[in-house]
Amino acid sequence: MTVAQQAARAKEASYVLAALPPETKDRALNAMACALRVHADEILAANRLDLQQARLAVEAGHMKPALYERLKLTREKLETVIKGVEELVELPDPVGRVLAATELDEGLSLYKISCPIGLIGVIFEARPDVVPQIAALAVKSGNAVMLKGGSEAAHTNDALASTLQTALASVPGYPAQALQLIHTREESAEMLALDQYFDLIIPRGGNGLIAYVKANTKIPVLGHADGVCHIYVAASADLEMACRICVDAKTQYPSACNAVETLLLDERWPEKNKKALLETLLKNGVSLFGGADIAALARVSGPVTDWHTEYGEKKLSVKQVKNLLEAISHINRFGSHHTDCILTAEHEEAQIFMDLVDSAGVYHNASTRFADGYRYGFGAEVGISTGKTHARGPVGLEGLTIYKYKLYGNGQVVADYVGANAKPFTHKKIGSKQ
Amino acid sequence: MTVAQQAARAKEASYVLAALPPETKDRALNAMACALRVHADEILAANRLDLQQARLAVEAGHMKPALYERLKLTREKLETVIKGVEELVELPDPVGRVLAATELDEGLSLYKISCPIGLIGVIFEARPDVVPQIAALAVKSGNAVMLKGGSEAAHTNDALASTLQTALASVPGYPAQALQLIHTREESAEMLALDQYFDLIIPRGGNGLIAYVKANTKIPVLGHADGVCHIYVAASADLEMACRICVDAKTQYPSACNAVETLLLDERWPEKNKKALLETLLKNGVSLFGGADIAALARVSGPVTDWHTEYGEKKLSVKQVKNLLEAISHINRFGSHHTDCILTAEHEEAQIFMDLVDSAGVYHNASTRFADGYRYGFGAEVGISTGKTHARGPVGLEGLTIYKYKLYGNGQVVADYVGANAKPFTHKKIGSKQ
Repeated sequence: MTVAQQAARAKEASYVLAALPPETKDRALNAMACALRVHADEILAANRLDLQQARLAVEAGHMKPALYERLKLTREKLETVIKGVEELVELPDPVGRVLAATELDEGLSLYKISCPIGLIGVIFEARPDVVPQIAALAVKSGNAVMLKGGSEAAHTNDALASTLQTALASVPGYPAQALQLIHTREESAEMLALDQYFDLIIPRGGNGLIAYVKANTKIPVLGHADGVCHIYVAASADLEMACRICVDAKTQYPSACNAVETLLLDERWPEKNKKALLETLLKNGVSLFGGADIAALARVSGPVTDWHTEYGEKKLSVKQVKNLLEAISHINRFGSHHTDCILTAEHEEAQIFMDLVDSAGVYHNASTRFADGYRYGFGAEVGISTGKTHARGPVGLEGLTIYKYKLYGNGQVVADYVGANAKPFTHKKIGSKQ
Repeated sequence: MTVAQQAARAKEASYVLAALPPETKDRALNAMACALRVHADEILAANRLDLQQARLAVEAGHMKPALYERLKLTREKLETVIKGVEELVELPDPVGRVLAATELDEGLSLYKISCPIGLIGVIFEARPDVVPQIAALAVKSGNAVMLKGGSEAAHTNDALASTLQTALASVPGYPAQALQLIHTREESAEMLALDQYFDLIIPRGGNGLIAYVKANTKIPVLGHADGVCHIYVAASADLEMACRICVDAKTQYPSACNAVETLLLDERWPEKNKKALLETLLKNGVSLFGGADIAALARVSGPVTDWHTEYGEKKLSVKQVKNLLEAISHINRFGSHHTDCILTAEHEEAQIFMDLVDSAGVYHNASTRFADGYRYGFGAEVGISTGKTHARGPVGLEGLTIYKYKLYGNGQVVADYVGANAKPFTHKKIGSKQ
């Protein structure tokens, strides 16, 4: 079957999914969880095949060891994923919610109702646990989905997808062709050209992948290119809190996109505090980069050549700023509009920072590492968006929906509402549900 | 100044706009309305210049007479636009609304707050009344905007934009560079390449314009390509209502995108009803297109060669369908996901239609012509979207906003919430406002 044929089938299924009762979707999620447990051995065996090939690639220097680690699926990891699928059952249906209701005139009622987006293409790199995660989010939100995984994980992805497809096919009324898997770069390129079928593309991976996707499709793209997060330590910041938050934001998981990459120190913050904070970071294994003024405070490993740098490891750019406005302006200019934080004792100052910094997440006195769908209480996330249309920040079930307008009349025509004797619209808010 | 420089200034202004108090924005709207009244003579004089050139173009056969009409700005049209600007003052601020509020843990509160999108590029054809309309929507929603009008309306657009810029500059605290105007196709092409500055592009115009924009930018695009709207007359439909609604939907304003283009008649609807409905349409000057079965019912002007046809005039494709599901399937396959209507006495049947038809507007017993921001009660619209991300259907102020997440803590770090002794999240809904 060609990618276009697969897409056509998935699109066809998406129309059915849009009207599926919540119970059917929850039944599908339970079937998926059950099937993943039943077929765990096969899935892990398929993963061992991928790992064998990956090990050879690492030994030959064709693959980074970190990639090998992400490829690895253990029984524990699989169980965590399965629990995630089951947790979605407990969440309310994101589809069919009444977002607004207006009486346009007597007997003419307009409802804005949440509905699925349609057919979504997700392109991801090594991690095979993404397959059941995204598939489950798609089921709950009523979307059809075509997944393109990394070729390194082909056996694992195949085993996962066929397990899930079998599970979906066992649920009466669920169109199993709503879940499709493709493998190669050529297929991926074909998918990006099918704007007649796909409503959204979500690339999950490095900058290269996202830039490639954006450059090669007319389909809307949801994702984030960089995570250049900042912490601004204001003049009134508490030293102990600054140490705790900066260490967490930089070292708790340095390769995460919500890890801090640039520390902005207010010039007016006491010099002994600056020294103590930088010393604490050094003690926690962080290499500092900065100018002569920073070198005068602590040991630096070199200057900063590009303030828009996502290290992804225990390295940190450090800069002194004159005041709040210089900090805001630096962040808006060099940041990636992901998540940025101010440490201050002044609530007023925090408000200005949070209003003027143009990022998906603006934090007061909390680690940037909180930027995550699970921590935000979304149950799960399909990714984090730094775009400014559709969905922003961690994207959960709600970001996988859009809405339609349902208008109920009893024969109304527009001609009655225009011209000299036009009937007026009432535009009254409707309190009760549809 | 280059387009990139104009865009950089507008982007800079957008950061200020995001934190502007509602009073400043409303003061800006009042200043705009006032200036448009004061400078009405100059604006109309500029319009006469454009009209003179347009008349020559029409006489030379280089411009369609309909385009000339749309170019024309009268004192009445201008006053309607000014009233529209003033009406926006009365609407609530779409920015700063608390869309969700969650306590993640004691002392750690997450707020989802509506905010402007940033910098929006709007490309439109002849109609110069779009300039104050879009500028006003941008002001109220806190967005910076760059407008590219048709070259035919260059004098009028210039007069309007400079009047509005002067008005904005007179408002203390309002960054007047938030409104920019460009003129040529080359400038428009430059704008589409500036994805580092623009957050959204809205093309308003024909299919050609929209296809061109989509093919030439990486910036998200909001708009609609076609308006192929359907009315399905079900077996139980009332004849009188069918006549009234079909005549309105086809003839009240045939060139509108929400005018009906295809009529689907259920085979089981009585033959005398079919004949009467088609006869009524013919009497109202509508030319019918259809197969032999339709020709047996009424005079047809020819067969339908493409079911995805937007006539934009008093022409209508007519087809018989076996049942509800065939109608739905035809609409999803050949429609443009704009606005589609079912005429039926059966509420249950209407529900199935409205759930399964994948369009921005799904109507029961009402004319498709109601699909409009003003009629929906949005105050005004920036356009109608048939896309399925961000905003769908008529797009008003709300569609010009996105949101950011504000997280307020007192020193929380993620390390405390992971691992063996992880603190649990509370994820409690916060009732009160920020």
